[in-house]
Amino acid sequence: MIYRIADALPVLRRTPDVVSALLDGLPDVWLYAIEGPGTWSPFDVLGHLIHGEKTDWMPRVEHLLAHGEALAFPVFDREAMFIASRGRKAADLLDEFATLRRASLERFAKLGLTDADLERRGLHPEFGSVTLGQHLATWVAHDMGHVSQIVRVMGRQYTDEVGPWGAYLSMLRPPSTGARPGA
Amino acid sequence: MIYRIADALPVLRRTPDVVSALLDGLPDVWLYAIEGPGTWSPFDVLGHLIHGEKTDWMPRVEHLLAHGEALAFPVFDREAMFIASRGRKAADLLDEFATLRRASLERFAKLGLTDADLERRGLHPEFGSVTLGQHLATWVAHDMGHVSQIVRVMGRQYTDEVGPWGAYLSMLRPPSTGARPGA
Repeated sequence: MIYRIADALPVLRRTPDVVSALLDGLPDVWLYAIEGPGTWSPFDVLGHLIHGEKTDWMPRVEHLLAHGEALAFPVFDREAMFIASRGRKAADLLDEFATLRRASLERFAKLGLTDADLERRGLHPEFGSVTLGQHLATWVAHDMGHVSQIVRVMGRQYTDEVGPWGAYLSMLRPPSTGARPGA
Repeated sequence: MIYRIADALPVLRRTPDVVSALLDGLPDVWLYAIEGPGTWSPFDVLGHLIHGEKTDWMPRVEHLLAHGEALAFPVFDREAMFIASRGRKAADLLDEFATLRRASLERFAKLGLTDADLERRGLHPEFGSVTLGQHLATWVAHDMGHVSQIVRVMGRQYTDEVGPWGAYLSMLRPPSTGARPGA
């Protein structure tokens, strides 16, 4: 599917409601569940989404429009939430994410960008030259990836509990380690 | 995490709101998106959740309580929605799913089951003897698996569009085919 601004906005607009529907008022046993050492809980993912809103999505759009390929985006700290979320309540984080996303989409609308702008280029600190369209498509895919992560972490809490049904629940199986079939 | 009825109910109660937050009013380009031939769209997944509500979750709870291991559950048709959803609107399906889930949880509450009942046994047509607890844990994991599927299908529409960011978006990579690393 070709990225078009008009397709992407309805998805981006919905993400705070999706995350709130999942997490608002959910017992701590789910909010702080993880998949294993070093993995993120739903609470951690929520903090990561907030940090993306503050430092990645619209800031990089504006950076790209201002600097083109002359100046690389600042590096995004994907684990900033481990400090930023400390001691905060999930309900506050959900409100903050919804407020930030609404503001992001208002800033985006004010820029008056059209699909003709999607080929404009910026400089990624690792990838080099990237397009505005790639960055904007990533915003959507990143939202979906982290919603998927939240529900995967939750579902996997019952990997042992589902007994033989695990054979039908592909989400409960860990990602392949690359081992040969039968190995 | 050990399955407990009191943990599972808040998750099951939220699923219709999660699916509605994702899909209500979403443009058709997302609702009917698929990952490839023979795969399910978000619209298909919604129909599958409805069919589960009608023929799997509470019907099997009641079947198990009535028959124990003396009579196997009827087989669940996981693709019934391809006919049942035909010609229907997503908004109607979302309403139906919410109504059915609410009714399921009311039926469940009326049974007055406690965690002491989780070891009660029934007969699965394929797996043989299973416990009520396994079936109930599967209800939660199945919900999470299909929410994950909906957002995966959506995110993967932009697999090509994200350009180099695909390296960071594990959800966009197809499941391993079992090939050896480097093959």
